[in-house]
This record gives sequence, structure tokens and C-alpha cells, in this order.
Amino acid sequence: MTYAEILTIGDEILYGQITNTNAKFISSELDKIGIKVIRHTSVGDKESEILAGLYDAQERADVIIMTGGLGPTKDDITKKTIANFFGAELIFDQKVMDMIAGMFQRLGREMAENNKVQAYVPANCEVLYNLWGTAPATWIAEKGKVFVSMPGVPVEMEKITTELVIPKLQSFFKTPNITHKIIHTIGIGESSLAEKIEQWEDNLPSHIGLAYLPHFMQVRLRLTGVGEDKDKLQQEIDEQAQKVLPLIEKYVFGYDTDTIESVIASLLKENNKTISTAESCTGGFLAHNFTKIAGSSAYYMGGVISYSNESKTNLLGVNPDTIEQFGAVSEETVKEMAEGVRKRLGTDIGVATSGVAGPDGGTPEKPVGTIWIAYSDEKGTVAKKLQLIRDRMLNIQFTSVLVLDLIRKNIK
Amino acid sequence: MTYAEILTIGDEILYGQITNTNAKFISSELDKIGIKVIRHTSVGDKESEILAGLYDAQERADVIIMTGGLGPTKDDITKKTIANFFGAELIFDQKVMDMIAGMFQRLGREMAENNKVQAYVPANCEVLYNLWGTAPATWIAEKGKVFVSMPGVPVEMEKITTELVIPKLQSFFKTPNITHKIIHTIGIGESSLAEKIEQWEDNLPSHIGLAYLPHFMQVRLRLTGVGEDKDKLQQEIDEQAQKVLPLIEKYVFGYDTDTIESVIASLLKENNKTISTAESCTGGFLAHNFTKIAGSSAYYMGGVISYSNESKTNLLGVNPDTIEQFGAVSEETVKEMAEGVRKRLGTDIGVATSGVAGPDGGTPEKPVGTIWIAYSDEKGTVAKKLQLIRDRMLNIQFTSVLVLDLIRKNIK
Repeated sequence: MTYAEILTIGDEILYGQITNTNAKFISSELDKIGIKVIRHTSVGDKESEILAGLYDAQERADVIIMTGGLGPTKDDITKKTIANFFGAELIFDQKVMDMIAGMFQRLGREMAENNKVQAYVPANCEVLYNLWGTAPATWIAEKGKVFVSMPGVPVEMEKITTELVIPKLQSFFKTPNITHKIIHTIGIGESSLAEKIEQWEDNLPSHIGLAYLPHFMQVRLRLTGVGEDKDKLQQEIDEQAQKVLPLIEKYVFGYDTDTIESVIASLLKENNKTISTAESCTGGFLAHNFTKIAGSSAYYMGGVISYSNESKTNLLGVNPDTIEQFGAVSEETVKEMAEGVRKRLGTDIGVATSGVAGPDGGTPEKPVGTIWIAYSDEKGTVAKKLQLIRDRMLNIQFTSVLVLDLIRKNIK
Repeated sequence: MTYAEILTIGDEILYGQITNTNAKFISSELDKIGIKVIRHTSVGDKESEILAGLYDAQERADVIIMTGGLGPTKDDITKKTIANFFGAELIFDQKVMDMIAGMFQRLGREMAENNKVQAYVPANCEVLYNLWGTAPATWIAEKGKVFVSMPGVPVEMEKITTELVIPKLQSFFKTPNITHKIIHTIGIGESSLAEKIEQWEDNLPSHIGLAYLPHFMQVRLRLTGVGEDKDKLQQEIDEQAQKVLPLIEKYVFGYDTDTIESVIASLLKENNKTISTAESCTGGFLAHNFTKIAGSSAYYMGGVISYSNESKTNLLGVNPDTIEQFGAVSEETVKEMAEGVRKRLGTDIGVATSGVAGPDGGTPEKPVGTIWIAYSDEKGTVAKKLQLIRDRMLNIQFTSVLVLDLIRKNIK
């Protein structure tokens, strides 16, 4: 078994100004390749604290992964401290320098003098070139242990972890075979799901474990198998997934790296359908769920965010009388929105949302969380009422996911 | 100075299944009363790991705050481990028992046998009675150090921290005052910012520290002061913020809990301006930056996501010849989009985005990351070309933030 410790560096974590999401991300990635994380440690931007963290960690762990303290300013001292820890010099790396200069050039910004500091790396390291920011990551392997240092900016850290660090760790350490298979469900709660599959779960062999991972109106079932023979393990896991499927088929929308967004994107492409969106309460977030996917312009034609009643009429052709009679948050209005956007944008499918996202704006009849969603295609228009919660952001996110589920159910 | 260490107990954190939000919450509460958190440590549900964490922590800190491992099941071993650490017995506490029984009665549920385990506490502790759940918190003061143990359920932990632990710590330790002030900047990199304020930074008094916190095309400057006199300290910090302001005024958009989204929202409200959005490459995310804010329907009227050329023409009135001649990603098109949405939605301001978000779709003249943004009001229309990166999601997020900055610069 390979043991890892995550050492997060930065006063802002100790002051409680930001949450240490990096440690969670890295832990989860290490878990997937069978490396056991035994400790998370966060220390401040102070050489003595970082050194103490390093000395402690190397006593316990085979892999020490550091994040943070790699910026160009005076309070960023991780690199210097690592060099001191190993008694190494900091040396200039021309390739890092060229990459930093190139990034500033592309952004049309002038490079500051102190960015050059970022091109210095410990002499005993292998540079992990950062394609997503200015601070290079470093990999030092000494006495069978590995020390990785990465910038703390989450988007950079995530890319460096998955694209550079994880593959290197897999080839450096002999890790056991761990196989995961994720079954994605939507439209059913964790407890109801557990009841439906109880018997199957009880009969799982001991080397295959099951976890329920709830996530935004979805529940992921994760099967994890450990074994010697990778192919056999994969086959066993696949067989178990086949066995459970008939029990929960109508809730299952995908496997492994699928997301509800990517599954809907594939469904639209396979069925050669175009789509458009008309949003009130989701305010652009539903559109974003389509447009964040590369290549979405092939089937997503556009949309309207109709926050005002006038925009519902002007841009979507909703009848003012409908709004007058039933209200903006109603089955009638949301259906006309879906039909209107479908017609205006000439797409096969139109979807729409209208509701009270909150925290204010509720009435006794339509309290915060009352939301209508609609789906329209050549066969007709269907609408569904949701009764969600008091949190604005969650209402926006939940509604967008439930519209995707509505598409999934109707597109076939 | 009083030093604290937070020791979080639970396998689910090390496996990366949940984020350690408890450590952030406790840190932030300790920070407010001037107790300096010097380390966060997370260990698993294993006696040897918890003991190692306790021994390490008491070497460094005056206060050790533990969360987690207090549930009724077998893997919850914190209490037993604390008792072993102090060589104390676990004794039965009738008041805890009565509170647990009362809670089950109120919920109309039967108490399980193993809930009785929760009524045992280390003999040397003072019980902090948990009014919000079943597991009692404990306070042990030995040799001038304080050891607190709390359940890991966030809602219980938060209540116990603010209502029980913080007041006790304030009366136990004589603590200094700590004051923070955050200055938010946009449109300037960390290094250039550092160069501009270098002299001011070098002349900061020793009891006031400075940190640079980069965040999505923005850099936050955090001033932290430590002192005896709270009012005097606040005044000194405010004076330093005043002093640095002229050096970086055009980049500063807010202070403390401000965000660029909330500042733009306030600017629109104060100036009594309405706004609408026309988006191509940001695909709804720019609209979301407005609509995620409660009350945004007062000034945000709506928008159009014009992914296809037809939608640019149909919904925004962009001249097809403009797209034909200059392309969809061009100064001319993006200006017509901003003007078109402003007119169609009858708003004071219209903003627009059009670009190659990537990862595909680039050409030699317009590579991935080439993005035009525009702002239009009654005085005219301005556009700006951005040259961003290869990452689709970051391009969407960065562009949205830079449109907000464009609004900030033009609204006055």
C-alpha cells in the first residue's frame, strides 16, 4: 500500500478565509488509483511551519503533495523552502520563463519583473510544466519518496493533478488494481434507491464495495473492486452493474464519466435534434449547461432570458393575456415560453423555466421554490411543476438539472 | 498570542468524499477573537492516528479543537481515544442521557441501544451540553492548554462553536485583537500590483501584514493587523488602505465582502440603470452572473444567447452583411449585438460577448481564446478584444468577469 499526505500551504486557509477544497480534490484522485491518504495538514506561509510539515509528513507517507505558496510575491515561499529542505539550489528554467512570457503576451499584459522569480526551480526537481498558469509544479523523487509541489489556484491544481501528477504516480508506485464503475441515477432519492437494490447489495462479493454519492438531485452508485487480475475484476464489476440495472433502469442515465449534461448532448446529436432555451428563474444557467460543452453549437441554437414580462412577450411571443390571467409563474406561461423559443429559433425542441427562485418574491399560493418547467417538440408541449427550497442558487441549479431530465424522458 | 490547532477526525475527509468545511468555520471564528490558528490536521478514524495528532498538536498549540468521531457507531472512537490520551476513565453523565432520551422522544423515534454510549464522557472533562444533536461536546483544561471535542455534523458544530466554545475561550485566554481589511482589485496581475505598491508595502508597520489573494482575473489585497486597542487598530488599517488607494485606484472595485457581481449590481441600482445581455461565447454564464444575485430582476431585464448566426439576426437584429463581411467574432458584430439587445429589451445598457471559447473552432487569424466584448449605452458603444487561453470553461468565466469590469469602467 502506498501512503500519501497532503500539505496545504497558505495563511488564508488557517485564517478561515477560504475552504481547503484542494485537499479534497487530490484525495479523491489518489483514492481512485489506490493510494491511501493518511493525513491532511495545512500550515501557514512561514518557512519553519512548512519545514515542520515536510519533516512530519516524510516520516509517515510515501507521497507528499503540497499545494500553495508558489505565486510571484514575497509571501510565497514554498519553492525556497523545498530547496532548503533538500539542501538544493534554485536554478533558472528557460522553458518555464518562455511559457510565462508567452502567457503574458497572449493576454496582452506586460510581464512584471518578479514573474521571473517563478522561472526558478529546485535543482533536484523534475519540472511539471504548468499549461494553465504561471507557476510551475515540481516533482522530486528521493529515497523512494515523492514530493510534489503545485500552485494552489484550484483550476491549475486540478489540471496538473489529473494530467501530470496522477499518471506519474501510477508509473512510479506499484499500486493495487482498483476498478470503479459509477452508475448515474436521477429522479430518485438515496433511501428509495437503497430499498430497491437492497437484496443485490447484500449479495455483492466481499471484494466489491458499494457507495452512494448524492449530487444535485442525482445519486451516483459507485462500485469499487480490488483484486489481482485487472481484466477479471473489470468483468465482475460489469456483471454486477448488469445485474442491478433492471431494478432501477428508468432512473439510470449514464455510467462513469457521463454527466447529465453530456448525456443530453449525446442524445441530441444521435437523434439529430436542435434545441433552444427560454429561461426566467434559471437566468442563463440552463443555457450554460448546454454551452459549457465543447461542440454544443452543433445542436444548441440559442436562447432567451426573459426576466421581465415585456421580454417574454417581445422575444418569445408569450401572449400578454396569459401572463395577466395565470401569472408569469404558471403552466400556461411556461408552455408558451417553450413553444415561443422553439418557433423563434426554428429548433426541433424548446425548453423553458419560470419560477420563484427566492429568497424573496414568494406568495402564499406560489411560495419561494415554486417553479414550472416545460418541454416542447413537434408532438406537443409538456410542463411539470417543481416545489423546491428556499435557496436561490440551489433552486437555479436543481431546476436546470431537472429540465435536462425532462429532455431525457421526452426525446426518445 | 494564543495558538490553536484544529484536528479533524474522519475517514470520509481523507478519502476525498467530503470537503473539510468545519476547519474553515472554526478558523474563521477563532480569527475573530484573536486566536491564531497555526495548523489544520485531518486524520482517519483510527486510535493511533488520533493519538499522534493529539501529541503533535499539544507541542505547538494552546488550544486543540477536535471535530468528528463522536457518533454512536463502532468507527466513532474519538471519546475513548481522548480518555486514553489523558489516562482518564469514561464516566456516565445522566444529564447527557436525559437530553438524548428527550430528543428521541420529541422526534417520536425509539432510541437505539448504542445511543447510550453517547452519554459516557471522559472523567476529567467539562461537558458542553449539545442542544442541537445527541453527541455531547467536551472541554478539558490541563496545564494551561485547552482540548475541545465536538461532533462533526456541521450544523451542530457551528452552534456549539459560536454559543459555547468561543465565549469560554475568550474568558480563558487573554487574547489580542486582530483586524482584517480586504481590498478587491480587477484588471491587473498580482506582480504588477506588487510593483505599484512595493514602497507602501515595505513601509507597513510590523504589526500589519499584507497578503495577495488572486481569484479569477482579480487580486484581493488582505491587510491583517494585530494590536491591543481594537479601535486604534481599525483606524490604522483604514489609514493604510487610504494610503495605498491612490496608487491603484482604477483597479479597486470594492472592500471586504464585496464581489465584482455585487458591486456591479449596486452600481446599476444606485445609478438607476437597467441592463440586458447578448451572449455568444459565454452562452448564458454572463446572464447568470447577474441573475444569481437576489433582487436582480429590478435592473436585469433579460438577454439573448445567440449561438447561431440566425439568432443573432432574428433576436438581436444584427445585420447579416456584418456577420458575412467581418465574421461572428468581430468588433462590428459584437457592437451590433450589444446595441441590438439594448434596443430590443429597452434597457439603458446592453453588453455582448462573441468569441472562440474553444477547445476547437480556432483559425490562424482568430485562434481559440479570441473574444470580443462590448458595452453600449446612450453615449455610444465600445468594444474590447481579449486574447485568452485554450480552456473553454475558463474562457467563459474570465470573459464574464471582464464584461463586468467593462461595465464598471463605463457606467460612471
